[in-house]
Amino acid sequence: MAETWTLAETAFRVSSARAYEGLFTLGSGYLHVRGSLEEHLEGAPQNASPLRTPDSVTAEKFVNLKAKWGTYVPGLFGRHPLLNREMINLPFFLDLAPHVGGERLDMEQSTIEAYRRELDLRAATLRRSLRWRTRAGPVLEVALARFVSAERPPLCVQRMTLSADRPVEVLVRAGLDADVRTNGYDHFADVAIEPAGSRGIACRVQTDAGDTARMVTRLAADASDWTYVASPRRGAWTFRLRLAAGGRGIVEKRTVVATSRDLAPCDPAAVLDELAATPYEALAAGHEAAWAARWDSCDVLVEGDQRSQHALRASLYHLLRAHVPGDPRVAIDAKGYAGEGYYGRYFWDTEMYIVPFFLYTDPPRARTLVDFRVHSLPGARANAAALGYPGARYAWESDGDGREACALWPYRDHEVHVTADVVYAMAHYAAAAEPEYLRGPAAEVILETARYWMARIDRRPGDDYPSLLGVMGPDEYTPICHNNAFTNRMVGFALALAAQTPGASAEEARAFAETARGLPIPRGADGVLVLQSEDFELLAEPQFERFWRDRRRPFSSQVPQERLYRTRCLKQGDVLMLMHLAPQEFSDAEVRRAWDYYLPYTTHDSSLSAGVHAIIACRLGLDEAAWDFWRRSAEIDLDVEHGGAAEGIHIACAGANWQVAVLGFAGLATALESDRLRLRPRLPHAWSRLAFPLVWKGCPVSVDIVPGTTTVRNRGTTPLPVTVGEETQEIPPGAAGRFRTRV
Amino acid sequence: MAETWTLAETAFRVSSARAYEGLFTLGSGYLHVRGSLEEHLEGAPQNASPLRTPDSVTAEKFVNLKAKWGTYVPGLFGRHPLLNREMINLPFFLDLAPHVGGERLDMEQSTIEAYRRELDLRAATLRRSLRWRTRAGPVLEVALARFVSAERPPLCVQRMTLSADRPVEVLVRAGLDADVRTNGYDHFADVAIEPAGSRGIACRVQTDAGDTARMVTRLAADASDWTYVASPRRGAWTFRLRLAAGGRGIVEKRTVVATSRDLAPCDPAAVLDELAATPYEALAAGHEAAWAARWDSCDVLVEGDQRSQHALRASLYHLLRAHVPGDPRVAIDAKGYAGEGYYGRYFWDTEMYIVPFFLYTDPPRARTLVDFRVHSLPGARANAAALGYPGARYAWESDGDGREACALWPYRDHEVHVTADVVYAMAHYAAAAEPEYLRGPAAEVILETARYWMARIDRRPGDDYPSLLGVMGPDEYTPICHNNAFTNRMVGFALALAAQTPGASAEEARAFAETARGLPIPRGADGVLVLQSEDFELLAEPQFERFWRDRRRPFSSQVPQERLYRTRCLKQGDVLMLMHLAPQEFSDAEVRRAWDYYLPYTTHDSSLSAGVHAIIACRLGLDEAAWDFWRRSAEIDLDVEHGGAAEGIHIACAGANWQVAVLGFAGLATALESDRLRLRPRLPHAWSRLAFPLVWKGCPVSVDIVPGTTTVRNRGTTPLPVTVGEETQEIPPGAAGRFRTRV
Repeated sequence: MAETWTLAETAFRVSSARAYEGLFTLGSGYLHVRGSLEEHLEGAPQNASPLRTPDSVTAEKFVNLKAKWGTYVPGLFGRHPLLNREMINLPFFLDLAPHVGGERLDMEQSTIEAYRRELDLRAATLRRSLRWRTRAGPVLEVALARFVSAERPPLCVQRMTLSADRPVEVLVRAGLDADVRTNGYDHFADVAIEPAGSRGIACRVQTDAGDTARMVTRLAADASDWTYVASPRRGAWTFRLRLAAGGRGIVEKRTVVATSRDLAPCDPAAVLDELAATPYEALAAGHEAAWAARWDSCDVLVEGDQRSQHALRASLYHLLRAHVPGDPRVAIDAKGYAGEGYYGRYFWDTEMYIVPFFLYTDPPRARTLVDFRVHSLPGARANAAALGYPGARYAWESDGDGREACALWPYRDHEVHVTADVVYAMAHYAAAAEPEYLRGPAAEVILETARYWMARIDRRPGDDYPSLLGVMGPDEYTPICHNNAFTNRMVGFALALAAQTPGASAEEARAFAETARGLPIPRGADGVLVLQSEDFELLAEPQFERFWRDRRRPFSSQVPQERLYRTRCLKQGDVLMLMHLAPQEFSDAEVRRAWDYYLPYTTHDSSLSAGVHAIIACRLGLDEAAWDFWRRSAEIDLDVEHGGAAEGIHIACAGANWQVAVLGFAGLATALESDRLRLRPRLPHAWSRLAFPLVWKGCPVSVDIVPGTTTVRNRGTTPLPVTVGEETQEIPPGAAGRFRTRV
Repeated sequence: MAETWTLAETAFRVSSARAYEGLFTLGSGYLHVRGSLEEHLEGAPQNASPLRTPDSVTAEKFVNLKAKWGTYVPGLFGRHPLLNREMINLPFFLDLAPHVGGERLDMEQSTIEAYRRELDLRAATLRRSLRWRTRAGPVLEVALARFVSAERPPLCVQRMTLSADRPVEVLVRAGLDADVRTNGYDHFADVAIEPAGSRGIACRVQTDAGDTARMVTRLAADASDWTYVASPRRGAWTFRLRLAAGGRGIVEKRTVVATSRDLAPCDPAAVLDELAATPYEALAAGHEAAWAARWDSCDVLVEGDQRSQHALRASLYHLLRAHVPGDPRVAIDAKGYAGEGYYGRYFWDTEMYIVPFFLYTDPPRARTLVDFRVHSLPGARANAAALGYPGARYAWESDGDGREACALWPYRDHEVHVTADVVYAMAHYAAAAEPEYLRGPAAEVILETARYWMARIDRRPGDDYPSLLGVMGPDEYTPICHNNAFTNRMVGFALALAAQTPGASAEEARAFAETARGLPIPRGADGVLVLQSEDFELLAEPQFERFWRDRRRPFSSQVPQERLYRTRCLKQGDVLMLMHLAPQEFSDAEVRRAWDYYLPYTTHDSSLSAGVHAIIACRLGLDEAAWDFWRRSAEIDLDVEHGGAAEGIHIACAGANWQVAVLGFAGLATALESDRLRLRPRLPHAWSRLAFPLVWKGCPVSVDIVPGTTTVRNRGTTPLPVTVGEETQEIPPGAAGRFRTRV
């Protein structure tokens, strides 16, 4: 059972070091730190600036080192000269390296036995244990643990425990390294590092954006010969631990981070002082209690298939970790604050993939996420103005201020649907949690984005309907198309909402409503097929059998972009994504037609694709397909052999995984689709049980599905009507309803 | 009359300094040097590397200094970290600066009177004269002259003549500066500069591509106190001239350049030794004689409108200058070796805009240009292979090896027509000059490009014809379209030729021919309108009246790219370009329909647009439009107020200007259009005479058009049938035929 709460690495391989760094990221919302080895690896300098190679300009990855440190505080952005605004990687504070007889513990060079590293998901704690057969002779048992406190979000606590088979002197280095880069670039305008007290280090960096980050780290150990070693942008203490045979030595390192942007400013040294007398165990207990409460609100129990349980818990862990409660100045970036892929920016991923999980488990956290777009409305207005439009246009890749940071024009200029997706998510939030949100905080967003759309929409000569031209839909392998079904429907939805939103003039409202009705959803000749765009059939066949030789690698890695752009290959489902978001608007026949037509064209090169396909497959009763897509979606970050989370967590995919379980296999209809709580369970054959808590329009509920029976317990205070399959029951408060289900 | 041979600057303005630098570029084919001031300007450092600004990445211009040195030897390419392979700007050798009483001659700071600078087009010599009222009191007359020898292409000769109104001592600095950049980047892996003899400087640079360039400069003056001043990457001599009142002092500077790539290697010092006894006047006379012979072969005489004559001679001067005779390793880059715009790369401009001028005036020079594509076939093969195609694919922006150097994917990946344009130009060359070329040197190019096309062409499900999808036509404001009429016709032409080319198997030949026949030329509903592409009508109206507020500036500078890409705005004529290249395939009604439909959509933001419109207007008898477009095309580089040639000469436009005069106003049908020499003169009202030499299929001819009469003289050795308007005469060798013409 504990196994399903643990992600374990049982042998160290340098080839998967970066993947585990990402997967083992710890965080408190406020502070995140990748799962880097405390003692680091040789030959992986973290201060390289490989900007000067011609091919790196458009590449997302500047470096391909064997290890990549990452320390992130959401909201700290700086300006990269080539890549535009990005999240800044802060100084590395985990450094803790034992040396024996001049040999530094080194996972590549040293003789290591009995290695195990595990992330305890329930306790959000990373532990490593190993036996180190030193070249000098002594054999050391090394145990390391660390957590970023859920109770004290700016605090990271580390502990190293050493014991040896004979008396030995261990030299320990414990430092703080500010000589780091972000995507190869140095964002620090100023760095100051100095000893703080007899066993501490204080660091202050000023970013190129003018923000400051301060870190104070403090060491505790029964050791001697404490020496401070300074080098440019680095500081470290060294000290000696004398271990008796069989005796133990313990080193603790506590670091507190503060920035000039904090909503709750603190003095790192004062926090450390305050906690000085609190032992490790007490700090850990408080941290674990906070995580236990989080898990209670959202854990999804799966029985019958440990891999599924594993993957789902990993997803939920990272979703919980990455969320910053109560801070509407940030959302959850595309890599979940676990790497520099996508530059720490905010995408539609938040609205479409991540919000539902929080919305149905912890609505106030969902509100923080939708509030982010209210907060960043000025940036969206600036984006619209920069392109000559009125109103507000949300960025394809947003920084904390809502400003467009995407450096690649096809996405930046053409993937406009994000502006409608923002409104969709607000409507979703309102329907599920707070109806008055639409006329309150969301109103200005709805109206301002509608004004942008009205200027962005064209009416071609000869046409008697409006058109949205030159757009990129979710399928990014068709960069510029016309009347994209997904985009048109989302924009139509947003405009229809705007027509009913206070603040629109009567004339505006009429125009919004009329345009919403007029935007076409293009159809194939049979009238059943929804076309991805009106010009989709002008594209050629992708000829996968000829060009997609290695199906384990993305299609896009095997053909030039030019072929992607002139053929019907899809990066991810586009029409099916639409049918996932608005299932009630399409008949099963239409969904099935779209599935049959697009699936052979779909590469699933995007990690956002498989989850949506699993959900659609559930609707269509395609159990085998649903299972295959579930596996693909669920295990992306666990697949360390193929990179996994090396660049960060696929956090949208994590959100999709929750949706597959709850909207797919349990068949929950969203609050936009249904006023009443409705489930259509369809358990995978391998699963003997699926159970989870929900909040349905303010009412806490728990759902427990086993083959043939679904039990819904009303944990609220008023009766709750529930439909499962075709059967409806009204469940009294505190009671449970049992439903017979087909599967 | 001399006025029409002279481009003059009568007042120095720093705002137009860069435009004149480009316009006044001197060159011998082998060596080119921008018209920079010998003494330079303050505050225009030539060693800046402004690479680190976020917005510069996609910009073509890295620096916007008030002066920009440029020294170019065609074929010397290096690798820019952001921009890819580019022509390297070599060390600056013109430096020659007089100082009086500590004051350096400075066009901005000094008191200057009687200023005049002129480029003598006939003599290809740049002269400057001015009166310098020094702060110390003496008034100096300064005269400067220089030329890059047409007789000795690696040699540049400079002379400065000084006289004063009273006795004065002038300190002169004369140096060589290798601390230069190309688009902000330092391409020199190694630089050595040292004194060479008592009055010389020798410089050797090694480029990042491993090529070397050597320069030896030598000074002559009746002066004293010769002192060599060394600084990093720079070397200079200073010396003192003592002028009596009314007496003259003369300084001569001769520089010879050699590179490791030279077809005719030389030792610069030995060349200078050899010429040591030859006086300036003799060198100038040899140079001018060589230019006179060039002008004889191609000068176009215009009477009645001096502006036209002026502009045309300027165009022809730069075409003659930029051509490198006998070296098939280079073509003529997009800025005519007069600046770093477009990075010194080779575009379709060579084939479509420049070749015709040489082809009908000096066919061996045209052959060198088409041979460049034969020479660079291996690069074209590598380009195809890099994208997974067989055969050969010519680069949108080619370096000397034919490799793709374009860093911007829409052009690089999608503007594929260049590969067909290359074949078109070979066919044009063969038809006009050397029919056997097609079965000889061109055959492999024709076959290999045909093999690329066969793999690049798709057949969509349900279609019974082949399609060329995802292309950019000459109108670069529609980045990715399907079945572009221009591209399809050019590819069809190339494939039809390939079907008849030895080396193709019977099966291949059948497939080439069938595909050539099948590629559609899309049409509008009326069957008369040729559509730019099959999806052109899906685009929106560009709404110029609303968004193009300042018509003197490009439309693209006033709207975001996103609007360009979703509307029917054209950067340049696309269908009309096709009708210009294949006039015989379209009726006047079709041409007129295309003109009426596309002209309102055409921004002419490209300098390639106006000339083609002038030619089409001539065909359609639209005299006023023809004249307006002629003016726009003819004077682009002369328009120093709007930048003119600041980044280099619009050399394709120069070629187009010749075409407007000869194919447009004289109405010459090309050898691809007509087997017989055919003219349809239509003189502009302002012109009283248009006369030019031609070579028609090996037969030298001179044409002289005055209102109502056209005279064609056969300067060859066999009778020549000629049609002017509707009348045909066979003109005996040595005789002239007179034709009555309408206008």
